[in-house]
Amino acid sequence: MDAAVDAILREASSHAGAISFAGGLPDAALFPRGALHVAFDDALRETDCRALQYDWPEGSAALREWIAARARARGMDVTASDVIVTSGAQQALSIATAVLARPGDAVAVDRAAYPAALDLFRASSLRLVPHGVAATFAYVMPGASNPTGHDLDPDVVAALACSTLPILADEAYAELRFDGRMPRPLAADLRTRTWHVGSFSKTLCPGLRVGFLVAPRAHREAALAAKQDADLQAGTLSQTLLARFLARDDFDARLAHARAVYRRRAERLADALERHLSWARWRMPEGGFSIWIETDRTGDDVALLREAVARGVAFDPGHRFLAHASPAIALRVCHSATPVAQFDEGIRRLARAFDALRRR
Amino acid sequence: MDAAVDAILREASSHAGAISFAGGLPDAALFPRGALHVAFDDALRETDCRALQYDWPEGSAALREWIAARARARGMDVTASDVIVTSGAQQALSIATAVLARPGDAVAVDRAAYPAALDLFRASSLRLVPHGVAATFAYVMPGASNPTGHDLDPDVVAALACSTLPILADEAYAELRFDGRMPRPLAADLRTRTWHVGSFSKTLCPGLRVGFLVAPRAHREAALAAKQDADLQAGTLSQTLLARFLARDDFDARLAHARAVYRRRAERLADALERHLSWARWRMPEGGFSIWIETDRTGDDVALLREAVARGVAFDPGHRFLAHASPAIALRVCHSATPVAQFDEGIRRLARAFDALRRR
Repeated sequence: MDAAVDAILREASSHAGAISFAGGLPDAALFPRGALHVAFDDALRETDCRALQYDWPEGSAALREWIAARARARGMDVTASDVIVTSGAQQALSIATAVLARPGDAVAVDRAAYPAALDLFRASSLRLVPHGVAATFAYVMPGASNPTGHDLDPDVVAALACSTLPILADEAYAELRFDGRMPRPLAADLRTRTWHVGSFSKTLCPGLRVGFLVAPRAHREAALAAKQDADLQAGTLSQTLLARFLARDDFDARLAHARAVYRRRAERLADALERHLSWARWRMPEGGFSIWIETDRTGDDVALLREAVARGVAFDPGHRFLAHASPAIALRVCHSATPVAQFDEGIRRLARAFDALRRR
Repeated sequence: MDAAVDAILREASSHAGAISFAGGLPDAALFPRGALHVAFDDALRETDCRALQYDWPEGSAALREWIAARARARGMDVTASDVIVTSGAQQALSIATAVLARPGDAVAVDRAAYPAALDLFRASSLRLVPHGVAATFAYVMPGASNPTGHDLDPDVVAALACSTLPILADEAYAELRFDGRMPRPLAADLRTRTWHVGSFSKTLCPGLRVGFLVAPRAHREAALAAKQDADLQAGTLSQTLLARFLARDDFDARLAHARAVYRRRAERLADALERHLSWARWRMPEGGFSIWIETDRTGDDVALLREAVARGVAFDPGHRFLAHASPAIALRVCHSATPVAQFDEGIRRLARAFDALRRR
């Protein structure tokens, strides 16, 4: 957490007329409201109302069966008993980190990575090092990374495969590659040292707060104990709704639709960047919710954010994503939840904020 | 977690005809199904469907307002911004422990205490010591403890008040005293060193997985960062349902009814103990979900559990609740969720299991 950035973004979120590219929220139009409503009606009609009762720490058996079957179809050796349902993917990262590492250990990360993972690693007193440097484990986001929207560097994958390093594989966006290609999970080939993490927050909705962890079998018991110590179990109601919903849903058709929506959003945001911020550097993402922008301009990205918010636009400052501070300004702009009609004006305001920063 | 006990209780829970006094589940007949249904309908009709979206890490503003107002009415100096909504009370304990203590530190606990807290403390490499011995902080359950159902020892309270020790006050059962007396929160008088923890799991239903933490103000930011590192936020849907439900509910009337139900259950279970286990020691609880039974019989409470399960009854072995092993057998029997009509037969089976253990 970065208190200064946090305060500015909270303030910005309350402004009427502000355009926000911050936060990485999914498009609420994709939330399966109607189907969740049906699931809720059914769940609350059960005689003993198990949806509102305690459950075992590993979570709903039906949900774990669904997760395991899907992972098996992608080449993983996994059964329902290997799956631990977590309170979002973040908790899976937290459990894996607690089991894998001790204060002072090193974790290998991409140059730009998911801020809440970096916060967690720092809070766990881990050193952040680049891939290839000696570490206790490696953290990666296969398929589509947050913030870049790109797949893993093949050289990193090859090096990880040849190493003996435990791998924390965060697949939060892996099902949301625009080309629909589902990467073979690292845990398919490196099962004994890969901690496989997934989430329903990006593909369905974050408000249920359900993710999952498939730990290497040797660590399953320790991971489950850590889960129980952390919060006893994931929410029974959320898991019940999900399991009932998934039993009836054509999840692949849903993913195909979501990918098309986010691809179109990414393309439109790239168009706006092309028009108003053509001097900056970005690569068209392969998936996910955001575009990662790098620049040659040096300065303070929080000062840039302040200039931007003063002009009615918000974004996520790049330093939050970087393992190590850089003098060049970078930023993440999310295309996933902002009304598309605001993209052009929003990026125009962002360009003006850059100009204002330079004039200071 | 105790893998052996866990395996036996899981096995027992699948037996038809088994009577279980284990687990500490609330009575599902008290779950506010209808009112939650109304809340769900309303929440999912909102245009932007915020109930399914991400929220800030501290949680729902409306829910925090409700929690703060209720705490203020009990004498606490607290506003909504002091409240962090957590994924159950367990997560509040986990956050407080992470902020307060380092491996090797000592935590002062009651002689018999909540097992998931003891597990957490042990997993955090803390030493468990009795109240009065030098410690980094003290863990207590005001109002009604799990497992004893009794309020804090007044001598312990007096000693804590005179000390400078941080206090982790777990009020999970404080609103479920049979006499309806709501103890003045320790945080009312010792605000700067009391971590005030509450839950909706016992008073409403556990399946929403919502609890809360009011940290001392000096630690609020660290606690919020730990919350975010742990799982970003508590479930938005659960919090939304709760906030909408509480805005319309007569919560005090609901508590009065729940107290009456649990008091009657406790009395009936005590009757059965009187009939079949009169040689054992217990005190009629003042609140909560369970009766704590102590005996002079030495032996292995897990062996007793096996004998009991073989006879169709389950309970929670006492060693799970004890900071330090004891040769005398103790156990927790819950009255809260077992059909009352099974109490007599269940305790009769338990008495036979004791006999069988003695004959071995």
